[in-house]
This record gives sequence, C-alpha cells and structure tokens, in this order.
Amino acid sequence: MSKEIGITVKKNEDFSEWYTQVVIKAQLTDYAPVKGLIVLRPYGYSIWEYIKSSVDQKLKATGHENGFLPVLIPESLLSKETTHFAGFTPEVFWVTHSGDTEIGDRLALRPTSETLAYSMYSKWIKSWRDLPLKINFWNSALRAEIKSTKPFLRTSEFLWQEGHTVHSTKEEAEEEVAVILDIYRRTVEDELAIPVILGKKSEKEKFVGAVYTTTMESIMPDGKALQMGTSHFLGQNFSKPFDVKFLDKQNIETFAWQTSWGVSWRLIGALIMVHGDDKGLVLPPRVAPIQVIIVPIYSSQSDKDAVLKKASELNDILTKKCLRSHIDSRDEFTPGYKFNDWEMKGVPLRVEIGPRDLPKNKMVLVQRDSLKKSDLSFDNAEDEIVKILNEIQRSLFEKAKKILSDRIQNIIDLEQFKKEIENGMFLYSPWCGDQKCEEMIKESTGADIRVIPFDGKRSNAPCIVCKNPSKIDVIFAKGY
Amino acid sequence: MSKEIGITVKKNEDFSEWYTQVVIKAQLTDYAPVKGLIVLRPYGYSIWEYIKSSVDQKLKATGHENGFLPVLIPESLLSKETTHFAGFTPEVFWVTHSGDTEIGDRLALRPTSETLAYSMYSKWIKSWRDLPLKINFWNSALRAEIKSTKPFLRTSEFLWQEGHTVHSTKEEAEEEVAVILDIYRRTVEDELAIPVILGKKSEKEKFVGAVYTTTMESIMPDGKALQMGTSHFLGQNFSKPFDVKFLDKQNIETFAWQTSWGVSWRLIGALIMVHGDDKGLVLPPRVAPIQVIIVPIYSSQSDKDAVLKKASELNDILTKKCLRSHIDSRDEFTPGYKFNDWEMKGVPLRVEIGPRDLPKNKMVLVQRDSLKKSDLSFDNAEDEIVKILNEIQRSLFEKAKKILSDRIQNIIDLEQFKKEIENGMFLYSPWCGDQKCEEMIKESTGADIRVIPFDGKRSNAPCIVCKNPSKIDVIFAKGY
Repeated sequence: MSKEIGITVKKNEDFSEWYTQVVIKAQLTDYAPVKGLIVLRPYGYSIWEYIKSSVDQKLKATGHENGFLPVLIPESLLSKETTHFAGFTPEVFWVTHSGDTEIGDRLALRPTSETLAYSMYSKWIKSWRDLPLKINFWNSALRAEIKSTKPFLRTSEFLWQEGHTVHSTKEEAEEEVAVILDIYRRTVEDELAIPVILGKKSEKEKFVGAVYTTTMESIMPDGKALQMGTSHFLGQNFSKPFDVKFLDKQNIETFAWQTSWGVSWRLIGALIMVHGDDKGLVLPPRVAPIQVIIVPIYSSQSDKDAVLKKASELNDILTKKCLRSHIDSRDEFTPGYKFNDWEMKGVPLRVEIGPRDLPKNKMVLVQRDSLKKSDLSFDNAEDEIVKILNEIQRSLFEKAKKILSDRIQNIIDLEQFKKEIENGMFLYSPWCGDQKCEEMIKESTGADIRVIPFDGKRSNAPCIVCKNPSKIDVIFAKGY
Repeated sequence: MSKEIGITVKKNEDFSEWYTQVVIKAQLTDYAPVKGLIVLRPYGYSIWEYIKSSVDQKLKATGHENGFLPVLIPESLLSKETTHFAGFTPEVFWVTHSGDTEIGDRLALRPTSETLAYSMYSKWIKSWRDLPLKINFWNSALRAEIKSTKPFLRTSEFLWQEGHTVHSTKEEAEEEVAVILDIYRRTVEDELAIPVILGKKSEKEKFVGAVYTTTMESIMPDGKALQMGTSHFLGQNFSKPFDVKFLDKQNIETFAWQTSWGVSWRLIGALIMVHGDDKGLVLPPRVAPIQVIIVPIYSSQSDKDAVLKKASELNDILTKKCLRSHIDSRDEFTPGYKFNDWEMKGVPLRVEIGPRDLPKNKMVLVQRDSLKKSDLSFDNAEDEIVKILNEIQRSLFEKAKKILSDRIQNIIDLEQFKKEIENGMFLYSPWCGDQKCEEMIKESTGADIRVIPFDGKRSNAPCIVCKNPSKIDVIFAKGY
C-alpha cells in the first residue's frame, strides 16, 4: 500500500489529523457538499447498523416500540416550552418556502422531537389504560453547527435514536430513565468495548427543559471527555404545556410524567478514537461488519484453485457459526496490499492461507489489536476463532478501562487542578453546588462539569473554587 | 366495541372515508400538525419494519449495501441536471436560514437523492475496480403536496428506500434495473399478497432524467391504479453532468452507466386498500406484526389461572416456532371488545381459550380473512397454525389476483374506452406511440398510460385515439 493510501500520521503525534485520515481512508464517511454535513459510506453505515440493532433489541425486550415522526416542526409548536425553544433557537434550520410559496408559520427541521411527539401523545393518551407509552424513533436530528465540525462528533445532521415515554407516576418515569441509561451502558461497554462513567449532569449542563439529565461519559485519548448518551427525566415540564394528561384509576385528570433519551452515531466517533492505532481502525468483534477476513495467497493457477477451495471451506464453516467472514479474492491486488487495507479497516482477525499451509492443514492467524501472529489447525478452527474473537473483545475493553482509570485524578487544590486539566485529566473534585464556581472553572480552564457520578465518592474537602464547604464531588474535564 | 371505536362506514359505500377510518382507528398513523404530514404509530411502523426487512434482505443477498445521505442538498447541485430539477422544483421545501443567518446557496430538502449521491460517487469511483457500486439508502423524501393529501398515498414526507447504482456497461446497468424490479415484485406478491403488472412507463410518465422507467402497477378496489415501485435506467444522463467516470481495463476514461429505484410506505396504503374489509385491516401473515392473538376467556379467578396458564403454554410453543404470537391479558376489556379490536387491527388468526375448552384439550380458531371458525386440538397446534397462516397468505393473494384480472379489459374502441374507464377498469388498448394521443386521453377521461406491459400482447388494432396504425398495446387507468 502506498503511503498516500495508508494513514500518514501517528495517533499520538497529530490526533486530529489522524482521526480525519482514519474516517476518510477507512471509507467510513466523506464530506457532503454542505459544510458540516457528512455522508456514511457502506462500511461506516454497517457499523451503525450493528450499534442500532444492539440498542433496538434491548429496547424491544423492555417493552419499547418504534415509530416515525416527520422532520418538519412548526415554529409555533417548537416555542411552546420556552426554555427548550430558547436552547435550540440559534442552531435551527428554517424552511420558509415550498416551491415558490412562502410558508406562514415557518417550519423547523427537527433539532429534537419532544414538542412534536408530545403534541401527538396528548391526542393518544386518555386514561391510565394507555400508559405507559414508550416509543422510540430512529431518525436524524439537525442542528446547524457554527463551530468547527468533525465527522461523527459534531455535524449539522446526525443519525440517532430519540425515545419519548409517558408514565402515570413520577417513580415509574424515574425508573425508566435508569433502565435506559443501563441499556446504553451495556451497549457501549459490552459491544463497543468502551468503559463509561455514569451520573447526572449539573443544572447548567442538563438538557434544556429537563428536570435532570443522566449521562454516560468517557474519555478520549486526547484527554477530552465525550458524552456518549443521555437519558432525561422531564417531570411534568412538557406534559403541562403540551397537555399530556390522563384519567387515573380514580377518574381524576392528572398530568403525566415523561422521559426522553438518545444515543447517536457519535458512538462511532468514540469507537475510532478509543481503539484505533497508527495503522487505522481497530474494531471490537461485536460491532465489526467483517469479523474475519480470509486472504488467500498463491502465485500459480494450481495453487490458486487449491487455496481458494480451502478458503471457501473455512468461510462456509465460519458463516454457519454466524461469524461475519469474508474472502478477499480480488485478483488485482497483492496479499500485502490486502493486509494493509483490512488492517486500516480494523477487521479483528485475518486468516492467511497459502499453498505451503495446505499439506499441514494449518493457517496463519493475525490479530488486529495486538498484531500477534499464530498458527491455527484447520480442524476445530471455528471454536478457536470464536475464542480469540472473545479475547480481543475483552482485551480491548480492559485496555480502555485502564486508560480511563489512569486518567481520573482526585484533586482538591485549584492550582493543581489547572495544571492537570491541561494534561487531559478527568478531575474528581469537591464542589459547593454554586453555578458561579462552575462558570469560573469554565472561564479559567475551559473545563465543564462532565458528570456528577452515581458512585458518590466524597472527599469532604472544601469547594475547589470558593473554598466554602462542598456538597458533592464532581468530574471536571474539557469536552468535545 | 362501541360504534365510534369501530369502523362506521362500509368499504364499498364510501371507500375514501373507510380508508381514513381504518388508518386512524387501527392506530397505524395520525395527522401531524403540518398539513400533508403524518406520523407513524408503533403498529403502523411495525408493518413498515417487516416490509423494510424483506426488501433489505433481498438487496443484501444481491450485493447491495446501505449508506446514509444528509437531507439537505444545495440548490446549485440539484439544478445540475436540468430536466430533473425542473421536474421537482414546484414541490421542493427550501431552507433559507440557520438560526438568524441567511444561507447563500439555499438548501433543498431531499425530494430524491440522485444529485447528491452522484456528486459523492464521482469522488469515490476511479477505475473499473470500484465498480459496480450498489448503494441503497433507507430514508425519507420530501415533496410538498399541494393537491389533497392521503396517509401513505400522498404525503409531503414519506418513508422509502432509494437505491443508486453505477456500472461499467450499459448491459450490466439494464440487468440491475430488472433485478430490482423482480425484488420488488417478489416482496409485493409474496409478502404483501398483492399481484402486480410489470412493464415500462411511457416517455411522458417516466422519471425526470431517466432513459426509461420500469414499474409495477396494481389496481385498488376503487378502480384506481397505484404505482407500487419503480426502477429507472438512467443511462449516462446523470454520469455526464455529475462526472461519474472511471478508467476501464484499457485505461480509457469512460462515463458510467447508472440506475436508481425505490419503494415507499405507499405499499402500506396498498395493503390496507386491497385486503381490508368492513371490520378494518386484514393483514397477510408475512407482514403482520402480530400473526396470532390469543384471547383468554374466564369469569372466575380459578378459571382465569387455568386459562392463562394454557394461553401461556401455547404462546411459548408458537414463539419458539418463530411465530409472532401475543396474549391479550388486559383485565379492563371484555373478550368481545378484544375480538373487535384485533379484527380491526387485521391480526390473521385469533385463538380463543375458555375454561370449557381445557378438559377437551382444544381451542377455537378464527381466521381474520374469512372469519371462519374451527376447533383446534392443543396437541400439534403449532403445525396446524402454520398451515392455516400459509393458507391465508395464499388465499389473500388469489382473491386479489382475481380482482385484478377481472378489472383488465381489452378495448379498441374509444367510446367504449370512455365508458369503461368510468367503471374503474384497467384498459389494455392499442397506441400509436404519439404523446398527443396520450394527452388527449388524459384530458378527455383523466386516465394515464399506467404501464406498457412486458408481456407485449398485441391487438394489432389501430391506435385507440387517432386510428393510425398502433405500435404497442398499453394499459390506461386513472391513478392515485
């Protein structure tokens, strides 16, 4: 593979350029003609399909159903919950014309669908018999990004799911918020092999219109925090303006309790950053579109026939075992080119089959994560491959977990705080709860409160800023 | 079920009102706050998921992959192929602002994505090695409908898939057009149980920008034709303005050959119209979200326990057999209410289990299509249920096929033509090929050439309009 085709910078030398090269050269995505918009190429979309399917199965298993909402929301509807509207106004795309006709009540492209969903829910819900109502929507959201954009992390349109539920009691709604955050955690930790910290957002950082927002945060190799998914308790903040009410069992009209939650293709961005290396993508087996790439090696025609026959046998065995296996039988490329190509694309396991291997009934296995090579007997190959794929999945998670825990520091001194934040650390520090102190940190260091962890560790030291008694300990970091 | 909850008009008395009541009362859809836009409720979306999954599997099995394109297309790009642009201009939604900022090159909401896809493809395709490129996109398209709108049939935003492929030869591209039309036919005939007529569109009716359009048409019970899906041969009409070219094996730069194709949620509309009856929806088993509804019947608590236990046993057996089975154990509704509710929702098979059935080890089966009742032994119930579901699937198709063939008439006389078109017939008539005769028919009768059938039957009579020698026989009808 020529230098131009492969990744030309090192991950730890120019992280931003490395990321851009990986997403483009591994053919995950490309830039659309409008600034801030990207397309997904099949390889990138396929990863999204695995993430989607994993979340979708978990949602259906917990009684959620899917629906569809149009992308157009009238301004009059969007502005009904005022804090919410004010939060999104600067980034809304506005449709003002259809053909040559001007539209009276101009239409917003969905930045999120609380307002539209709840105007429908208020028609559908009449009594306690209609509750809970738990609908999820796989769609895209549009928010005009004026700051610098980055594929998967900050784009003006992004794929996501948004769930919107309605409950008859506060307790049930809060339980739903927790159930969803756990579905997200399991998806991200078990499938994407990325460890997360769970907790609440501060009042300043919560979703506009929510009572509170729960979040899962992780740290990227450049030391910036990434919000991986959020689950909001909306209380009755939307049910009141949108008239989402029901007759309870005593026939009393009551405002409902609501939640909303979402994860987006940002998870693909996290996957790339956390696991990738100087050769390109490294995909955890569970979300890899191709888990095993078989590269046949031959020079003569008779070798070719024999090698391809063996490759095909192996491919059949693996496919029957429900493994996602593929033979790269392209004649126009050398084995060396293919090795580099599939390494860049992050395929977890490569099998090389050459003519000298055939009499010995063996193959060469190469692991993408460690680049470790080993011999494998053709007999029992499928069980061995399953075992190694599981090991890779586990090993990627363990490696990422160590990096996360190494990055968390307990800091109670402001000067040390300022120093460590520049080193790309997650700082676990005491806070008085006053938004002024939170803002002071933001202004002087660029860091936000990323998460107030559920684990509730207490330093009992005074607030990192004002030195008044602290109420809680929170994690500060710079974020994406 | 009270009169207001059930369907209050007969299908053959007020078809339009019947349709509207079914889509709303069976909870498939509802009207969004913007005129011409609808939402999909979970039951409606679930039907879409089965259609989607059926098409998606067939596309993947024939080497197609999925991707994602943003919804925003710059006007400058959309206008690059001029006929295409002119065709869509009147119905485009235009985004002119993001936040308070006016956008220079205003942005169209995707009416279809040829222009955007091909501007990307021209970057991705360099040589014959990159071909064929066969990408499909599951998304929605937006076309402002000024005429009267109808859920699933005519809405300003609709769910669909659009496929866009690139080939190195004309032959391969034309083969692709045919492969896709066959995938559509199999989906519609085998899964939705709706028979179709395959053929080409006339020059006047073809897709704007295509060399030719192939289509599958069917007839609805009100005598109007419905276009169920189209597959277009684009030739080099787009590859030239969008610079989609490749180096062939002789290293010569060549413009590529292209196709595009789509089916939409309009198929759900067809499903409702073709199979529904006075009680509501009738769903073919293959696309029914619930195939078997089990209704337990009891009055005492001890009966309840025994009946629910048996219902649960049956449900487990059916689920293990991969049937989509559900127990309606809601305490707040009577069995009679439940029967009507699930009949309105079109569930193919109902199983009633009551306390008197238990000692006899039997149940009562009711088929939704014929409302036929029969006894069923609990032993071997799953095989019998699979058999009956298959019979329902076949019977729905046969019934629809008879209606379609009864509606087709060979007509060579214009006066008879005018009379029969008012009777809601598909008229198979000779045509000279002149667009003026096609327009004259449209003006005087409201009928279009729906399809030039591949079967190529020839009456050899003179043109139905001008009496000059005819070139082909075509099918005229009024359409949706």
